[in-house]
Amino acid sequence: MENLPCARLCQRVRETGPLVHHITNDVTINDCANITLCIGAAPVMTKAVEEVAEMVSMAGALVLNIGTLTRDQITAMICAGTRANECGIPIVLDPVGAGATTLRTESTLTLLDELDIAVLKGNAGEIGCIAGAEATVRGVDSGGLTGDPISVARDCARTTKTVVAMSGATDIVTDGHRTYCIENGHPLMGRLSGTGCMVASVTGAFVAVEPDYLVAATAALTTFCIAGELAAAEAKGPYSFRTALFDTLANLRPEEVAGAMRVRADHAV
Amino acid sequence: MENLPCARLCQRVRETGPLVHHITNDVTINDCANITLCIGAAPVMTKAVEEVAEMVSMAGALVLNIGTLTRDQITAMICAGTRANECGIPIVLDPVGAGATTLRTESTLTLLDELDIAVLKGNAGEIGCIAGAEATVRGVDSGGLTGDPISVARDCARTTKTVVAMSGATDIVTDGHRTYCIENGHPLMGRLSGTGCMVASVTGAFVAVEPDYLVAATAALTTFCIAGELAAAEAKGPYSFRTALFDTLANLRPEEVAGAMRVRADHAV
Amino acid sequence: MENLPCARLCQRVRETGPLVHHITNDVTINDCANITLCIGAAPVMTKAVEEVAEMVSMAGALVLNIGTLTRDQITAMICAGTRANECGIPIVLDPVGAGATTLRTESTLTLLDELDIAVLKGNAGEIGCIAGAEATVRGVDSGGLTGDPISVARDCARTTKTVVAMSGATDIVTDGHRTYCIENGHPLMGRLSGTGCMVASVTGAFVAVEPDYLVAATAALTTFCIAGELAAAEAKGPYSFRTALFDTLANLRPEEVAGAMRVRADHAV
Repeated sequence: MENLPCARLCQRVRETGPLVHHITNDVTINDCANITLCIGAAPVMTKAVEEVAEMVSMAGALVLNIGTLTRDQITAMICAGTRANECGIPIVLDPVGAGATTLRTESTLTLLDELDIAVLKGNAGEIGCIAGAEATVRGVDSGGLTGDPISVARDCARTTKTVVAMSGATDIVTDGHRTYCIENGHPLMGRLSGTGCMVASVTGAFVAVEPDYLVAATAALTTFCIAGELAAAEAKGPYSFRTALFDTLANLRPEEVAGAMRVRADHAV
Repeated sequence: MENLPCARLCQRVRETGPLVHHITNDVTINDCANITLCIGAAPVMTKAVEEVAEMVSMAGALVLNIGTLTRDQITAMICAGTRANECGIPIVLDPVGAGATTLRTESTLTLLDELDIAVLKGNAGEIGCIAGAEATVRGVDSGGLTGDPISVARDCARTTKTVVAMSGATDIVTDGHRTYCIENGHPLMGRLSGTGCMVASVTGAFVAVEPDYLVAATAALTTFCIAGELAAAEAKGPYSFRTALFDTLANLRPEEVAGAMRVRADHAV
Repeated sequence: MENLPCARLCQRVRETGPLVHHITNDVTINDCANITLCIGAAPVMTKAVEEVAEMVSMAGALVLNIGTLTRDQITAMICAGTRANECGIPIVLDPVGAGATTLRTESTLTLLDELDIAVLKGNAGEIGCIAGAEATVRGVDSGGLTGDPISVARDCARTTKTVVAMSGATDIVTDGHRTYCIENGHPLMGRLSGTGCMVASVTGAFVAVEPDYLVAATAALTTFCIAGELAAAEAKGPYSFRTALFDTLANLRPEEVAGAMRVRADHAV
C-alpha cells in the first residue's frame, strides 16, 4: 500500500499538536502520556466524572482504555464519550482484557452500545470475544482465536460499526470492507508492557487529524511498528528497547517511514 | 544572583534525607518518587483520607498535585494540608490544569483558601488563571498569558500569600516583592511528561531544609534546570534525556551547579 | 547453599509463563508489570472488587501490595485472596509502610488474619512492627529494628505462619525453622523506587512454579539481587541502573546465576 500517508499524518500531528484526552489504566498511563508527546500531540489524563466532559470538549480525540477499570471509570467514560460524540470528536477504545472477566466484557459492550466508537483496538482474543467468535483471553493477553483472523476482524467491524485494529504478529485494520495487513513490528514490542496502550494513543493523535479513520488507524499502527523495528535494532533488552522506542518515534523522519512500510491491502470480502 | 545556595541546599537535602509526602496524580507519580530519591530525600505517596494526616506529621514537606484529581483526593489534600499547617510543615501546590476545567480551577482556589501554601508552582496559563489575568490553559499546558509575566506572578503571589514559581522559557519565582528570573533549562524538558511535577517534588525537598521559601524554590528550580541542561547534552531524544536527567541529578556536584547558574534578581516592583 | 534452584526456577517461569495477578500501588505498578514480563511471567493488574475473584482464578499467583492503599482496595484484596486460597493459588503480601500509619498496620494484620499468605515480604521496620518487635517505619522506609534481625524474622514467620522475606543489606528468608541469608545485592537498588515491589512480583512468579515457598522466595530474591549486581556494573546512576536491571533480568543466563550466588543457610533456631 504505497499511498498510506504515514509521513504526512506524522507531519500534520507535529504541526497541529492535537490534544488527546485519555481515560485510561493505572499501569501504562505514563507511557501513554509520553508516547503522545513523542508523536507530537498533547496528552491530558482525567478521571473525575465532574470534569471529563468539559475537558474532552477541547480535545482532538478521546482514548478510552479499560486496563484497570472500575464502575466509576465506566461512568466517566460514558460521560466523556457522549460529549465527544456530540462534538464530533473521534473515540479510540482499547478493551483491555475483554473476554477475561465478566466486568470487562460487559463494560466493553456497554461502551460500544452507548457510544459511537471510531477505532476499536484490541488483540485477537479481545476482538474475537467481542465478535462472539471462539476466542480466549488470559489476563490481558490473547489466548488465541479459532478461525480466520481477518474474517473475525471484519465481522467485528461490521457488527460494532467501528474500524477494528487487531494487533498480532500481523496487525489487521479493517472497516468491514477495506482491510489492511501490516507486517511491520518486532517481537520486543511484546516483551514490554504497554505497547498496545501506546499504539492506541498514537491512533488517537492520528484520528484527530485524519477523518478517514481506517487510513488514520492503519497509518498509526504502521508508524508505531516501524519505530519499534528501528528501536529494536539498537536495544539490548526490553528497557533499552523502551528508551529507543520513545526516542525513535520522537525523531522519526518521513523518508524512514516511507521506506520501511510493509502493508498490503486485502479488500476481498 | 551569585549567592543562591543551590549547592548548599542540595547538600543539606542529601545529609538529612527529609521525608516528602506527596498526594499527587497517577501519570507522573513514579517520576515524582524517583526524582525525590535522586535529589537525596525520601518519598512517600498516600491517598486514603484515613492516613494522610498521620503520614504527613512525620514529613518535612507536603506536595499536592491535582493532575488527575477527584473529589476524594481534594478531601484528602485538605486533611493532610491542615495537619501540615498545624505542624509547620511547608506545602508545595502544583495546580495542574487550573483554568482548563471548573473542577480544577475551583479546587485550586479551595486549597489556597483552606490551606497556608508555601510555594505555588504552575505554568503561565495556570498562574494567570489563578491571578484572574487573561490566560488560557489547554489540557495541562499553558495556552498563553496576556500581559507581563513578572507582574502577573507578583500579583498572584501577593493575592495568594505564597511564593509563586511560574515555569516557562524563563522561570519566575517571586514572593510578590523579591523576584528571581531563571534562564537555565532546555527545550527537551518540555518534550517529557512530568518535568513540571518533578520540579515540585524537588521544591518539596528544598523547602523541607530551608525556611526562606523564596530562596528554596529558586534554588530548587535552578538546580533542576541545570540538571536538565547537562542531561540534554547527552540525550538522543526524550527518553534517553529522561535517563540522563535522573542520573545527572543524583550525581550533581556542587561546583557544577555554581558554575552553571543563570539567575538574576528583579526586585523592582 | 549450592543447591538453590535459581536457574531451574527461572527456566520454569520462562517455559510456563504463569499469570501473576497484582493488586498493587499506583507508584510502581508499571515497574511490577514490566519486571513480571522480564522474568518470563505474564502480569495482570486489577482493582475492581467486581472482577478480582474472577481474574485471580486463572492466575498462578496473587501479589498484594499496600503502598497506596484505600479501604476499597483492602476489600478487593480480601475478595481476591479468599478465592486464591480456595483455589490453592499462593499469595505474596508486601506490607508497604506497615508500622508508619494505623491504617497500614491494621490492614496488614487484617490481611494476615483473613488470608493464608505464602510469602510476607517487607523491610526490617515493617517485619519488626508486624512481629511486635521494637521497630520503626518512616514513610515506606525501615527506620530500624532493635534486636537480632534473624530472630525477629523467624518469630514473625512462626506467628504469621508465612515464609518471611526480610529485605536489607543482607536479605533474610525464613519459614521460622529453615533460614537463608542472601548477601547478593547492590546499594543502587535502594536508590531506585520500587525495587522492593519488583522483588515481590518476581517472588510471585517463582511461587507460581515451586510449591516449597521458602525455596521459591529465596531463589526469587537471590535472582533479583544478582541481576541488580550485574546491572550496577554498567550503570552511571539510578536510571541507567533501572534500564540495565530490566534488561539484565530478561537476558539472565543460568550459569550467571549459579556462579554469583552468595547465600548461606542458618537453620539453627
